Amino acid sequence: MSHGKIAPPLVLINLKCYLEATGTKAVQLARYAEQASAKFGVTVAVAPQTADLRLVSQQTKVPVFAQHVDSVKPGSHTGHVLAESVLEAGISGILVNHSERRLEAGIIEDTITRARDLKLTTVVCANTSGIAAAVASLGPDMIAVEPPELIGSGVAVSKAKPEIITDTVSKIRRISSQVTILCGAGITSGEDVKEALRLGTQGVLVASGVVKAKDQAAAIEDLARACR
Amino acid sequence: MSHGKIAPPLVLINLKCYLEATGTKAVQLARYAEQASAKFGVTVAVAPQTADLRLVSQQTKVPVFAQHVDSVKPGSHTGHVLAESVLEAGISGILVNHSERRLEAGIIEDTITRARDLKLTTVVCANTSGIAAAVASLGPDMIAVEPPELIGSGVAVSKAKPEIITDTVSKIRRISSQVTILCGAGITSGEDVKEALRLGTQGVLVASGVVKAKDQAAAIEDLARACR
Amino acid sequence: MSHGKIAPPLVLINLKCYLEATGTKAVQLARYAEQASAKFGVTVAVAPQTADLRLVSQQTKVPVFAQHVDSVKPGSHTGHVLAESVLEAGISGILVNHSERRLEAGIIEDTITRARDLKLTTVVCANTSGIAAAVASLGPDMIAVEPPELIGSGVAVSKAKPEIITDTVSKIRRISSQVTILCGAGITSGEDVKEALRLGTQGVLVASGVVKAKDQAAAIEDLARACR
Amino acid sequence: MSHGKIAPPLVLINLKCYLEATGTKAVQLARYAEQASAKFGVTVAVAPQTADLRLVSQQTKVPVFAQHVDSVKPGSHTGHVLAESVLEAGISGILVNHSERRLEAGIIEDTITRARDLKLTTVVCANTSGIAAAVASLGPDMIAVEPPELIGSGVAVSKAKPEIITDTVSKIRRISSQVTILCGAGITSGEDVKEALRLGTQGVLVASGVVKAKDQAAAIEDLARACR
Repeated sequence: MSHGKIAPPLVLINLKCYLEATGTKAVQLARYAEQASAKFGVTVAVAPQTADLRLVSQQTKVPVFAQHVDSVKPGSHTGHVLAESVLEAGISGILVNHSERRLEAGIIEDTITRARDLKLTTVVCANTSGIAAAVASLGPDMIAVEPPELIGSGVAVSKAKPEIITDTVSKIRRISSQVTILCGAGITSGEDVKEALRLGTQGVLVASGVVKAKDQAAAIEDLARACR
Repeated sequence: MSHGKIAPPLVLINLKCYLEATGTKAVQLARYAEQASAKFGVTVAVAPQTADLRLVSQQTKVPVFAQHVDSVKPGSHTGHVLAESVLEAGISGILVNHSERRLEAGIIEDTITRARDLKLTTVVCANTSGIAAAVASLGPDMIAVEPPELIGSGVAVSKAKPEIITDTVSKIRRISSQVTILCGAGITSGEDVKEALRLGTQGVLVASGVVKAKDQAAAIEDLARACR
Repeated sequence: MSHGKIAPPLVLINLKCYLEATGTKAVQLARYAEQASAKFGVTVAVAPQTADLRLVSQQTKVPVFAQHVDSVKPGSHTGHVLAESVLEAGISGILVNHSERRLEAGIIEDTITRARDLKLTTVVCANTSGIAAAVASLGPDMIAVEPPELIGSGVAVSKAKPEIITDTVSKIRRISSQVTILCGAGITSGEDVKEALRLGTQGVLVASGVVKAKDQAAAIEDLARACR
Repeated sequence: MSHGKIAPPLVLINLKCYLEATGTKAVQLARYAEQASAKFGVTVAVAPQTADLRLVSQQTKVPVFAQHVDSVKPGSHTGHVLAESVLEAGISGILVNHSERRLEAGIIEDTITRARDLKLTTVVCANTSGIAAAVASLGPDMIAVEPPELIGSGVAVSKAKPEIITDTVSKIRRISSQVTILCGAGITSGEDVKEALRLGTQGVLVASGVVKAKDQAAAIEDLARACR
């Protein structure tokens, strides 16, 4: 059930709660990711819904991320997402503090600590350069920069506001030289990806640009090809 | 993947975030439930963690409940539990407003409405007779009465405070003659179950009494036998 | 500092976080309420922001409501609104579960219980007839029906969707014959008020219709006159 | 209503929701703070409950802090604490992210930005050195370090775990040379204060050590004297 090391450059596809990527459709999308990954030698990972983690993990070889994990320990926590549970389901990492699932500052730190103990890769989302710098102090493996006004817009942050990316990269690098930086929000094409990499990031976090594409396989190929 | 109609009397086992009932251990516990159900002709259902819903649903025939579902519709809701997703994973019903996952009043109503549209059975938890009466107005399929001070205590509410149960049953029945009423909190033995049924409920919601039992299979059998 | 009994018909003005009703402007608006109340023999109450409760209470004679109170007891609860604190500031009652400040079902019950102990009048907001019926079981003094899609719209629920009001009144009355029912959302004119009373309610909860009016005094007079 | 510049060393007293510091008792405690401040030439500030801010601000000359402010702008936000409202009530600053009122990371940043626009001093609480370093990136005026396990314990963090303070100071200073650092949690005596200052902080955040003291005036004097 090991899905390999997550080495940048990375294309991470967030399946959100889209019906176009739920259940068997999540598996199908992950297969496209697998094929693109093999074809271009680039890591392509997916973040399905919690109920689909094991299914995707068992039926494909791509790294699988949880979209959210609660910072609880095993015990009486009805309705929460336990790290040990999603780990057993085969995940490699977790998204933390996505703008649609924001967390208290202390919970972000707790989640990173728990993930580290379980050898899960953390991708902490930040919607401003200030938050990106702040979370860099908490020691995550990766930071994804996602200005919320561009999420789902089809306008790539790397093109619309390149200075947000360079400013954020610069602020993060003052605090951490090692953390991997992903560029999110509005990424839809290989051109967006190239621009994101040129601006100093090591990959992209993408959602509707792939999931809502008429041809999901082609959309993923386009992004992966640009990462070479 | 249909797991049959949920007819009372019902033993519903909440697996919470217990490691003793995570992943393959959730399946094992569900198998015990399946066997007890067949042996005594009583419905025994389980509520595993979200990541285990499909696994348990595919490998056993017991009715499977989600511990929590968010009231979102398909779309951009990273890190939420979509009803359509857990439905595709094979569940029959959902727990709503458990005392470890309390919801705003309006969200309880929204969740019941969404579940009804998807033909999912709702079990709404209430920790006082007042809340039980209140949620009865919202039209759930079942109400589980769980005084929080007895949860996980090993002291059955049906024995420690029988008047809570009779009072709650009475208040609920003034508003709804049809809703199924479950007795929760501290249930560990068949004797507790018999007392709960005698007080006017149609089943039990149990967690640590089964999951933490030295012999889970025997614990489930004891509860199911008492329901005949 | 006693501000008298709150007898229906009632016009309750929610000042929200509007700058037009903050600080000294809250006092000014409360004076208009006082004058209209005296002129027409109708109870007109105001719900200022927490920091303005004492100021309004000391400088006018209208009943003053808190917009929200936390269900905490005295102690270590930094940043919360303690019932004893706002009581000492001179309030007569509290708004509970406004659609802009929704509460868990259990918290609504706790808040009503605490308020009753402190002899504070509770006005619980409900945005559907189902929630209105549900909260009726919790024993509040008043219920305000506010369909969220009409809040701040300038379209009175009593005119746009009179069946929501009659349906809600009917559902509430099956559970409680005594609770006072207020009609909220979109109320701006005396005509709206008359219609609301005609449909079986005992008053109105209003906000922008008064606070954002060019002539706040005239707007309040219009509402109070219609209650006679 | 100007309460003067807030220059370290600073003793900041959080009144929480203690009845011993509610309403007129908040004013009394603030008078003791005023006297100690004058006697020792040290800034002593208080953070009363929201409903008491104006009262304390009007009747004393000490700097007054809000215990919490919501990051909303003027408008339809029933039951929230608007910065403009508490500013008009006479405050000089705000506590942000107290461990009893934790905030999402993005909300901390928004609150700091709003406070800066309104010329309000921000004291952001951090319960670990990691969070302290993280919030330093967000540009607050002050950071208060409060390990939650020592809050209200009567055991001063400066004595029980001095390495937490020195480690935190060191991590903060790598990011900001200017932010004022306060030491919180368990501070009860002048000796605790001296130790805190010796470890590199510029003041203390204290609550029960003063509010619950048999002689509040003497307790404040003891802390202020140690700051000289």
